[in-house]
Amino acid sequence: MRAVVLRNGRLGVTDLPDPVPGAGEVLVEVLARGICGSDLHCARHGAAFGEAVRTAYGVGGFDPEQPVVLGHEFVGRVIARGPATTGRVPLGGRVVSVPALTRPGRPFPGFAGSETPGGYAERMVLTEALLIEVPDHLPTELAALTEPLAVACHAVARGGLGPRDVPLVVGCGPIGLAVVAVLRMRGAGPIVAADFSPGRRRLAEALGADTVVDPVRESPYRVRAEAAGAGRSARPTVAFECVGVPGVVQQIIAGSPARTRIVVAGLCMTSDSYEPAQAVFKELELRFAMMYSPEEFARAFARLAAGDLAVAPLVTRTVGLDEVPGVFAAPPASSDDAEVLVAPGP
Amino acid sequence: MRAVVLRNGRLGVTDLPDPVPGAGEVLVEVLARGICGSDLHCARHGAAFGEAVRTAYGVGGFDPEQPVVLGHEFVGRVIARGPATTGRVPLGGRVVSVPALTRPGRPFPGFAGSETPGGYAERMVLTEALLIEVPDHLPTELAALTEPLAVACHAVARGGLGPRDVPLVVGCGPIGLAVVAVLRMRGAGPIVAADFSPGRRRLAEALGADTVVDPVRESPYRVRAEAAGAGRSARPTVAFECVGVPGVVQQIIAGSPARTRIVVAGLCMTSDSYEPAQAVFKELELRFAMMYSPEEFARAFARLAAGDLAVAPLVTRTVGLDEVPGVFAAPPASSDDAEVLVAPGP
Repeated sequence: MRAVVLRNGRLGVTDLPDPVPGAGEVLVEVLARGICGSDLHCARHGAAFGEAVRTAYGVGGFDPEQPVVLGHEFVGRVIARGPATTGRVPLGGRVVSVPALTRPGRPFPGFAGSETPGGYAERMVLTEALLIEVPDHLPTELAALTEPLAVACHAVARGGLGPRDVPLVVGCGPIGLAVVAVLRMRGAGPIVAADFSPGRRRLAEALGADTVVDPVRESPYRVRAEAAGAGRSARPTVAFECVGVPGVVQQIIAGSPARTRIVVAGLCMTSDSYEPAQAVFKELELRFAMMYSPEEFARAFARLAAGDLAVAPLVTRTVGLDEVPGVFAAPPASSDDAEVLVAPGP
Repeated sequence: MRAVVLRNGRLGVTDLPDPVPGAGEVLVEVLARGICGSDLHCARHGAAFGEAVRTAYGVGGFDPEQPVVLGHEFVGRVIARGPATTGRVPLGGRVVSVPALTRPGRPFPGFAGSETPGGYAERMVLTEALLIEVPDHLPTELAALTEPLAVACHAVARGGLGPRDVPLVVGCGPIGLAVVAVLRMRGAGPIVAADFSPGRRRLAEALGADTVVDPVRESPYRVRAEAAGAGRSARPTVAFECVGVPGVVQQIIAGSPARTRIVVAGLCMTSDSYEPAQAVFKELELRFAMMYSPEEFARAFARLAAGDLAVAPLVTRTVGLDEVPGVFAAPPASSDDAEVLVAPGP
């Protein structure tokens, strides 16, 4: 089968043997997969990525010198079953799944070798018990948004949003936009969202932001402060860092009022610096956010399937597997793109 | 009266006019005051300190070019009353107070000019409504610990300590030691505390640490991990950063397990750097802690007066006002000292 293989920071489309489903696993044909910023990070900062995984989980996690097939935002169609499966999703059924296998070591698809590839392959194996069947009415390209929406649901939950909080979303890439959509679904607001890209600001408005800000023209922090009111009745803030570039967290520290909670959902792969005294005097909180629980994933899917998350505008482009290396070379951060989907076939 | 005056980063003992209590205020003779690390920071990093205050509170706060009399950990004796006072604490009564005046602008004693000096003076004015009378059985040198204990109570509260958390206290200066004492009072444990100083490690044990660590000889994080157990039943961590030196927060990020809450109680006055990806993959939280509420101050005093906080060992040295500039020049961080008190008289 065709697959996008990463090795030593280089991506290439090559042929790999079909993966073989083990006990309790199914083989799926991948119908669509999203390109996640963390995949870009993994390709560009392989050593640092592996080090962060090792520090966090105490396991190898990722060796940039070994070939890996990334891709953890996927929708598949069940085409074969391994031994000891129940068939609870019939052959031909469409599925999503948290990107994990319940094999020993619980590998993250793609990171444990090409026998368990991630979504940037024509076929992959999944654990049957983790499958969520996609109902007929939900288009594949929307189901492919389950994973980033689960990330956003988790990030918003990490913020511990109160009814008076004025949320500020800094950065409107796929995760920032998904955070806007989840905030809108939860009735939070006014939602202030900032991004340099005019296209992404339009998307933020389409997904539910009440005010969008071009940081070149005005300060997102001043706009948020106006929305929050002044004096004793000023409303508090939860800020969502959805950029993942050095310096943004300190901008939020400097720009936010006392007692702001800052959810760091962006993944910055290099050292970053900040002014601790400002954070102390303001009694800020930095809450770093990573992925989601399986329950959060299932709830995000349920809200998506129920039509509570009107996120169709998030998908701005669809490419073929062969185009993935090119997308990685010119990542969507440099454009008006939001979510780039990779469809089946070349 | 004699007072230790700070101006342009230089400390000197000079004569100042006695402050005059305004409406609702009393004049106190200062019986003892503790030297706080934040006073040292304010003297050494005046511009950065002022900038952090301005960023946090939007007011001037502190101008290093103006003379200020610091000192916010004080015990006084009421010696005169201004107009519109009730006399609820009689003349001669000993008092503590949160370091704030309810004058317009709510000045922090010392920062608003020499007419409202802080505790490094022979006399100061306090707001009568904020006074807490010190009962006869409580020695002055213990009452002088109310303020750092309030800081520690607040820091521990910020940690949101659960019954299974294994607290790690990094740095056993006055605040770290006070945190140890408050953790002990709350029944938390085992408490692991780390400091380079043998004297401070002995104090940490005296105040309730179960295990003390010399970071030169062993890793506090490994010791904490052993105390917390391994695998699925491993107990979580709340780490208290009580050092305030660049790099320590990143050491805690690197050394702590996933989902650790890090309470930053140390005040680092320079930029600091960290590895965001490690914090993201571990889903850490950084909760910066500043001072306390008036209620927390009153509760800390009540526990101290009730004998629930056996903190007498915290005071390691008593000096005179004239010696304060010398203590600032060679701060206790370089020694086995913990809390240095300044007694009345030269």
